[in-house]
Amino acid sequence: MFRIAIIGMGLIGTSLGQAIRAANDKTAPMGAVEVVGYDTNTAHLKEARARLAIDKMVSSIADAVKDAHLVVVAVPAQLIPHVFTQMAPHLQTGVVVTDVTSTKEVIAKWAAELLPASTFFVGGHPMAGRETSGPSSAKVDLFKGAMYCLCPTANTPGEAIAVCEALVERVGAKAYFMDVVEHDAYVAGISHLPFVTAAMLVEITSSVSSWREMSALAAGGFRDSTRLASGDVTMHRDIVMTNRSALVRWLDAAIERLIEIRDAVQQGDEATITTFFQRAKTVRDEWIQQKPGMRPGEADYEDTGVQHVQRPSLFGQRIGDRK
Amino acid sequence: MFRIAIIGMGLIGTSLGQAIRAANDKTAPMGAVEVVGYDTNTAHLKEARARLAIDKMVSSIADAVKDAHLVVVAVPAQLIPHVFTQMAPHLQTGVVVTDVTSTKEVIAKWAAELLPASTFFVGGHPMAGRETSGPSSAKVDLFKGAMYCLCPTANTPGEAIAVCEALVERVGAKAYFMDVVEHDAYVAGISHLPFVTAAMLVEITSSVSSWREMSALAAGGFRDSTRLASGDVTMHRDIVMTNRSALVRWLDAAIERLIEIRDAVQQGDEATITTFFQRAKTVRDEWIQQKPGMRPGEADYEDTGVQHVQRPSLFGQRIGDRK
Repeated sequence: MFRIAIIGMGLIGTSLGQAIRAANDKTAPMGAVEVVGYDTNTAHLKEARARLAIDKMVSSIADAVKDAHLVVVAVPAQLIPHVFTQMAPHLQTGVVVTDVTSTKEVIAKWAAELLPASTFFVGGHPMAGRETSGPSSAKVDLFKGAMYCLCPTANTPGEAIAVCEALVERVGAKAYFMDVVEHDAYVAGISHLPFVTAAMLVEITSSVSSWREMSALAAGGFRDSTRLASGDVTMHRDIVMTNRSALVRWLDAAIERLIEIRDAVQQGDEATITTFFQRAKTVRDEWIQQKPGMRPGEADYEDTGVQHVQRPSLFGQRIGDRK
Repeated sequence: MFRIAIIGMGLIGTSLGQAIRAANDKTAPMGAVEVVGYDTNTAHLKEARARLAIDKMVSSIADAVKDAHLVVVAVPAQLIPHVFTQMAPHLQTGVVVTDVTSTKEVIAKWAAELLPASTFFVGGHPMAGRETSGPSSAKVDLFKGAMYCLCPTANTPGEAIAVCEALVERVGAKAYFMDVVEHDAYVAGISHLPFVTAAMLVEITSSVSSWREMSALAAGGFRDSTRLASGDVTMHRDIVMTNRSALVRWLDAAIERLIEIRDAVQQGDEATITTFFQRAKTVRDEWIQQKPGMRPGEADYEDTGVQHVQRPSLFGQRIGDRK
C-alpha cells in the first residue's frame, strides 16, 4: 500500500486527492494507495473528505506525514517554509516530497535548507487551475490532459522522479521536466504576467467615476480578459512575492511594448498598429491549433510509436536510463 | 412591409440578419420585414443568404439601399466614409441609417458630412462579438441579452430613434442610450484596451527564444487572457485608428499602473501587491454577480413594474415623451 499525505485541502490539494483516489488501483501507476489529508482549516478538511479526496483526516502535520511515502504540500508558496519546518522531524527516510506552487526556484532552496538530507524533494507544478478556490471548487478531472511541470535537481535519484511521474500520470496529466530557473521564467510570462494585467484592467477601469455606466457595457471580452483577477488573492500575492525577478523582467517587457503601441496610436501609425495585431493573431491562432498537452516536438513523433518523447534537458538521460 | 438593407455580411451583419429574420413577424417590433444584403465579397454574400440572414442578395449598394426604410452599415470603421459616399445619392428621404462599429464620435461626424440632410443617422454598437469573423461565424442569438448602444444626437427625431430601438429589441438586445464621446471613452476602457493588452501578451511572450517551450505550458489562463488577440485584424486596426485619443488615455493609465506594480514587485512591497489583487478581485466578483443585461440602476427597479427605466441622459426626456 502506497501512502500519500496531502497537506492543504484547497482547490489543488483536494482535486489531486480526488483524481488519485478515482484512479483504478489495479491499472494506475502506484497501484493501491491510501491518501491522508491535513489542513489547518477543519471545515476544508471535512469538505475534502466528503468530496472523496482523502481516505483519512488527521489533525496534525506530524500524523499526516509520519507513515507517508509521498508528501504533497499543497499550500500557498509563502506558507511552505513553515510547513517544511513542521514536517521535517517526522518524515521517513527516503520519503519523496513535492509541492504544487507556481514558482520553483525558491521552493527548491527552502527544501534544501529545511528538509532532511534523507528525503527527496521534486518541485511540482500542475498547469491547471480555476479562478475559484477552496475544496468546494475541486474537480476530479482538473489535471486531465494538463501539463505538469516536475523540477528535480541533478542529484535527485531516478526513483524519486519516478514516484512523482507516477503521481502525474495517475491524475491524468503529462510530466514536463525542466529546470527551476527555466520554469520560473516561463510561467512568469504565460501565467503570472497575465494575472497582473487582468487585475490592472479591472483596477484602472473601476477607478474612474463612470465605472457604473462602463461596467454595464462590459461584455464577454472584458470577462475573459479579466478572469484571472478573480483568482485567490493569497495565491497571487505569494506567487508574485516568490518570483519577483522573473516577473519584473516580463513587466518591463509589457510596459515597453505598451509604450510603443501607445505612441503608434497617438501618431496614427497605421502600419505599426496593423503589424502588431497581425502578428499577435497569427501566433495565437497557431498556438490554439497546437495539439493540447504536447511537449515541444512531441506532436511530430506522435505517430512513430515513441511513447515517452522527453524534451532534451539535464534530466533526459537519466529518465532514458530508467525506462 | 418594413425594408432593411444590411451592407456588409461579416459576423455582425450576418448575425443581425439572422436575428431579424428569425423573429416572429406577428409579435416582434417592426412586424413583417424584408432584409436585403450586400457585400463586395460575393462568397460572403452567398453564405449569408445560405445562413438565412437575408431575403435577397443585391449586387450594388445602390440596389441595396434604394427602397430601404432602415440601412444597417456593418463594415469595418474605416470603410464607412466610402460606403456612406456610395449610398448617399440613393437613399430615400426619411431613411434611418445606423452602423455597428465600436467607435461612435468619428462615425457621427462622417454621417453629418456625407449623408443627405433628409436622412437620419443613429450610431449603433451591439456589445457582442466573437474572436472569429465572417458570415460562417454568425450566430442567430449573438445579441440575445446583450447591451446595444445607441447614440442619437440632440436633433435626432424620436421616430428615427424608435426605428433603431425596434431593431435592438427585435434581435433580443437591450438599448442603452448614450452620448458619442461618453461611448467612445467607455468602450476604449472595457473593450479596446483589453484587446490591445491581449495582443501585447501574445507579442512579448512569443518574441523570446523559449516561446516553443513556454507555449507548451500555456494553459487556460493564457488562453482566456489572450482570446481577443485572435480577433479580426482589420476590425482592431480600424477601431484603434478611429478612437485614438480615448485609447491613448487608457493606455497611459495602464502603463502608469503597471509601472507602480512593477516597482512594488521589485521592492517586495507585499502590502501594495496584496491591496492591488484584493481590490481587483472584489470589484470583478461584484461585476460578475451583477444581473447581466441591466443598465445602471435598472436592477433596483426590476420588481416595481417599470418597463423601460432609462439611464438619465440627454435623451431620457425625449424617449419618455415617445412612450
